[in-house]
Amino acid sequence: MDMKDVLDGVWSDVSAHLGEGKVADYIPALAKVDPSKFGMAVMTVDGELFTMGDAEEPFSIQSVSKVFTLTLALGRVGEAIWKRVGREPSGTPFNSIVQLEHEHGIPRNPFINAGAIVVADTLLSGHEPRETLGEILSFMRHIAGDDSLTIDREVARSEQQTGFRNAALANYMFSFSNIHNPVEKTLGVYFHQCALALNCVQLATAGLFLANRGRLVSGHTVVSSERARRINALMLTCGHYDASGDFAFRVGLPGKSGVGGGILAIAPGKAAMAVWSPGLNANGNSATGTRALESFARRTGWSIFG
Amino acid sequence: MDMKDVLDGVWSDVSAHLGEGKVADYIPALAKVDPSKFGMAVMTVDGELFTMGDAEEPFSIQSVSKVFTLTLALGRVGEAIWKRVGREPSGTPFNSIVQLEHEHGIPRNPFINAGAIVVADTLLSGHEPRETLGEILSFMRHIAGDDSLTIDREVARSEQQTGFRNAALANYMFSFSNIHNPVEKTLGVYFHQCALALNCVQLATAGLFLANRGRLVSGHTVVSSERARRINALMLTCGHYDASGDFAFRVGLPGKSGVGGGILAIAPGKAAMAVWSPGLNANGNSATGTRALESFARRTGWSIFG
Amino acid sequence: MDMKDVLDGVWSDVSAHLGEGKVADYIPALAKVDPSKFGMAVMTVDGELFTMGDAEEPFSIQSVSKVFTLTLALGRVGEAIWKRVGREPSGTPFNSIVQLEHEHGIPRNPFINAGAIVVADTLLSGHEPRETLGEILSFMRHIAGDDSLTIDREVARSEQQTGFRNAALANYMFSFSNIHNPVEKTLGVYFHQCALALNCVQLATAGLFLANRGRLVSGHTVVSSERARRINALMLTCGHYDASGDFAFRVGLPGKSGVGGGILAIAPGKAAMAVWSPGLNANGNSATGTRALESFARRTGWSIFG
Amino acid sequence: MDMKDVLDGVWSDVSAHLGEGKVADYIPALAKVDPSKFGMAVMTVDGELFTMGDAEEPFSIQSVSKVFTLTLALGRVGEAIWKRVGREPSGTPFNSIVQLEHEHGIPRNPFINAGAIVVADTLLSGHEPRETLGEILSFMRHIAGDDSLTIDREVARSEQQTGFRNAALANYMFSFSNIHNPVEKTLGVYFHQCALALNCVQLATAGLFLANRGRLVSGHTVVSSERARRINALMLTCGHYDASGDFAFRVGLPGKSGVGGGILAIAPGKAAMAVWSPGLNANGNSATGTRALESFARRTGWSIFG
Repeated sequence: MDMKDVLDGVWSDVSAHLGEGKVADYIPALAKVDPSKFGMAVMTVDGELFTMGDAEEPFSIQSVSKVFTLTLALGRVGEAIWKRVGREPSGTPFNSIVQLEHEHGIPRNPFINAGAIVVADTLLSGHEPRETLGEILSFMRHIAGDDSLTIDREVARSEQQTGFRNAALANYMFSFSNIHNPVEKTLGVYFHQCALALNCVQLATAGLFLANRGRLVSGHTVVSSERARRINALMLTCGHYDASGDFAFRVGLPGKSGVGGGILAIAPGKAAMAVWSPGLNANGNSATGTRALESFARRTGWSIFG
Repeated sequence: MDMKDVLDGVWSDVSAHLGEGKVADYIPALAKVDPSKFGMAVMTVDGELFTMGDAEEPFSIQSVSKVFTLTLALGRVGEAIWKRVGREPSGTPFNSIVQLEHEHGIPRNPFINAGAIVVADTLLSGHEPRETLGEILSFMRHIAGDDSLTIDREVARSEQQTGFRNAALANYMFSFSNIHNPVEKTLGVYFHQCALALNCVQLATAGLFLANRGRLVSGHTVVSSERARRINALMLTCGHYDASGDFAFRVGLPGKSGVGGGILAIAPGKAAMAVWSPGLNANGNSATGTRALESFARRTGWSIFG
Repeated sequence: MDMKDVLDGVWSDVSAHLGEGKVADYIPALAKVDPSKFGMAVMTVDGELFTMGDAEEPFSIQSVSKVFTLTLALGRVGEAIWKRVGREPSGTPFNSIVQLEHEHGIPRNPFINAGAIVVADTLLSGHEPRETLGEILSFMRHIAGDDSLTIDREVARSEQQTGFRNAALANYMFSFSNIHNPVEKTLGVYFHQCALALNCVQLATAGLFLANRGRLVSGHTVVSSERARRINALMLTCGHYDASGDFAFRVGLPGKSGVGGGILAIAPGKAAMAVWSPGLNANGNSATGTRALESFARRTGWSIFG
Repeated sequence: MDMKDVLDGVWSDVSAHLGEGKVADYIPALAKVDPSKFGMAVMTVDGELFTMGDAEEPFSIQSVSKVFTLTLALGRVGEAIWKRVGREPSGTPFNSIVQLEHEHGIPRNPFINAGAIVVADTLLSGHEPRETLGEILSFMRHIAGDDSLTIDREVARSEQQTGFRNAALANYMFSFSNIHNPVEKTLGVYFHQCALALNCVQLATAGLFLANRGRLVSGHTVVSSERARRINALMLTCGHYDASGDFAFRVGLPGKSGVGGGILAIAPGKAAMAVWSPGLNANGNSATGTRALESFARRTGWSIFG
């Protein structure tokens, strides 16, 4: 298989669809992004990199960050984290609070907002947000192999000013004793992690350990192969909110999307892929990004389902 | 890898746990089954068969049948079926009616009871239940390569007498025009398909096409490779009701369970596995069967997640 | 207060609104009713009768019948009925099944469909539907003082053919052991009680005991004054489904509506009122009937709220 | 009727039950209250006052305050308030957030917490919490005829520190644009109004206008008679959270309870009653207080239901 041919094929499938979908507008700083942008990067387990379009333009990774903070939190507290957050698909939108009431403040999984706020709370664990964010940033720079990677302060501020629904979730879980730090501090970490700015190359590089049995291209171990497998399983079942089933059906790869229009997808044993296209479909996932990955999976035959 | 060693290892992991869980008692004919039974069969894409324990004793496959009726229905009406049933995890128990009210009579996926009743209704499509059941039975005998395979009439009768919650689901969907045949006829098909009696060898053989890009060991095509992939994706995200995420996390293979204690699991490109152990865990899935598959996936390294 | 003036005033308030709303069309036999019909009858505790418009034309009382079957069931099993049905407003539409799942098959109150089906089941109690319906009919004739009162068989048949959502409710509660008779028999009673045909005069007469401390105009005791009070309380809090609060707010009298367009309202110590106008508002209650009672309550000052 | 005899009778019904129920412990300052306290006051429309027990000991009126802030808000914005809050029973506990998600941030009624927070937001309306609280306090002193009445700052602080679930509700509604002031300010008003400390005499006096067609004993008009009627209707259908139906059934009077153990009840045209007993039943309403009002209504025959 010639990956350049594959990407050319993907391009022919998506080029007529650039600008489709609706750019997230509830975070003012995101609403300004050019909807016709499209980038894609493939980083193979052999360390080969393939790119297309705006693959080197940074974007706000938003919920894609949840994969990385979960990885960090598992390293910190291990499987004990599953006492505070479930690992089942939610059947509800990303910001639903209904499930929390029925299940006593335990979020369904770490990839819906409530679950990721619990994960951030785990990382904070009595420290100052500044320290925890420093730790997250160091980790991201390490796995992306790029020390220039940073947090977009304007986006973080923008989220903090408008994140009332997340504030509702955090206060609600606090009332069930499932947030242990002051709500503002936990939300501070959460809003800033969502504001991490990466380009497709950095994101595909950062996600590679999930395709590579827990190891970076350099051979350095980030997590055990079993943990990498389990994170992939969670991405497959829960990575696209209430469209996770559809993504598995159409693309057939573990993936995590963000409202910034980015998606990280994993082909175990083969490669990590990052796509970016800001227009979102009705479920809040990148419209053209999903289309690109569907085309990519079909052309490579890399679906994990045979 | 020596499959006999693998199965010996699985046995050493489960032998202390035989009889765990609770045999389904809401269907009287099932309540009589010996809880200490345990069988397992592995059918590889090369046509090799490995068995263990009570692998040749027939059991009621119950909801595992939903995989096969979905396959038949996709052949009959194609992708149009997704207008009448979704493909998202439900986040609710197998017999929940709540989701139906919120989503206007469209079941979340074809593997919860409501969804499988719609699938049965699709197959019935104006015919008599007897004809449709004949067709289902022929299909099962064909893919299992065993003409002796049959429906357990006592179990079917037992379900019909006690299946009031399924009758509620069917009447409810009828009121939304999402059941097109008389409710009793559709339920008649559904209750009888659930009463299909297979042993592990037959079940693993019948499921092989899902591991083999849509083809039987004989090379005969049952479905396209794309369709096989998609059915596997549905099994992964929805095959274990509200424990689908946990099964993906622990086992890492597409699977479908039934309250008779059977589970069909698929390792794409490698093999189909059937396990049977009647005791169920809190989510209604075989307790020891799940444990066996978790051990099997770890020992073979066949998880689809890397 | 001159009741004739009051009714003239009501007429001036409603005459421009005849035909408003939407006639129930899910029961074919009801869909044929002339939407511009309007009748009203007031029966005082002194036995005075006042009428207006089509007050002597029979209509299908539908859910208004739930008041009378509850009265009968309380006489039969007493307060024990509250083990099988609650007495709280439901906050959901008349035919919701969601609440039943969350509360283990116990309907919220006797005036939503599920609750009335349980009440019918209580009355049936091992007898044949024919006998129970005979008993209901005798009771209605007794309290309405009119032996000509009957059940409209065409409407009953029409309901039986289309009542799949009620069949869902009944089967569902049966699965929770909260229906004790065969589902078809209980539904047979329920569908026929809903098909009782009364005119406004008969309905106001039949309801008078609720305004008159449990006694008919003749002085004959139907229920104790305490029981009459309690039924009135239930009508106030639960008599108009999820618009019960609005009816209390606007009209201020206990009332029970039916999809046939009838409403029975009670002014304790003063009179029973029946109105009929087939067009329904968004909540399934008579649009012009509600308007008439609002005008009536304002003009008489009979609101129970001061 | 001799009111002293009535109260003696009530005492004989409740004296064996003092201390029953569970004192609210989620607000630390409330948890310290002696559970065996019991007080009752009856203020008639003729200005006669009858008291019993600890009727002159102040307690935290908590949610009973919602009746008075609603009265103020109706005076301020009139019926327009019903665009921001419904008037239907909720069928859910006082602090439920589920309904808000399903109904786009519009609380079901002004007496659940979410609804009362919207009412507080209406009163705040761009002012400082201090000013709004001054206005609420002036109003309470005016209608209670007692300038010594005050807000318990310790209780207010205690609520502010522990009110995370209310903070969740407020943030959530803010995200739907149904809170117009900064969340902390609106919550500041809400927590302080709940901390109003009144004794039974003051509370019965303050509530009298609802029994007296909107007028104080002095004849001074607080609201129109129509508005008083409507507030009573809301108290009847929504005043006791998901036990409102039960309170109507057993007591038969409009009433509003608070977790401090107080209940205000209205007998239109006759009197306002305040009871206080800190132990709460399973629904969060005063156990002995409800019992006292049930006895009182039976002995006076003042039920609004006949």
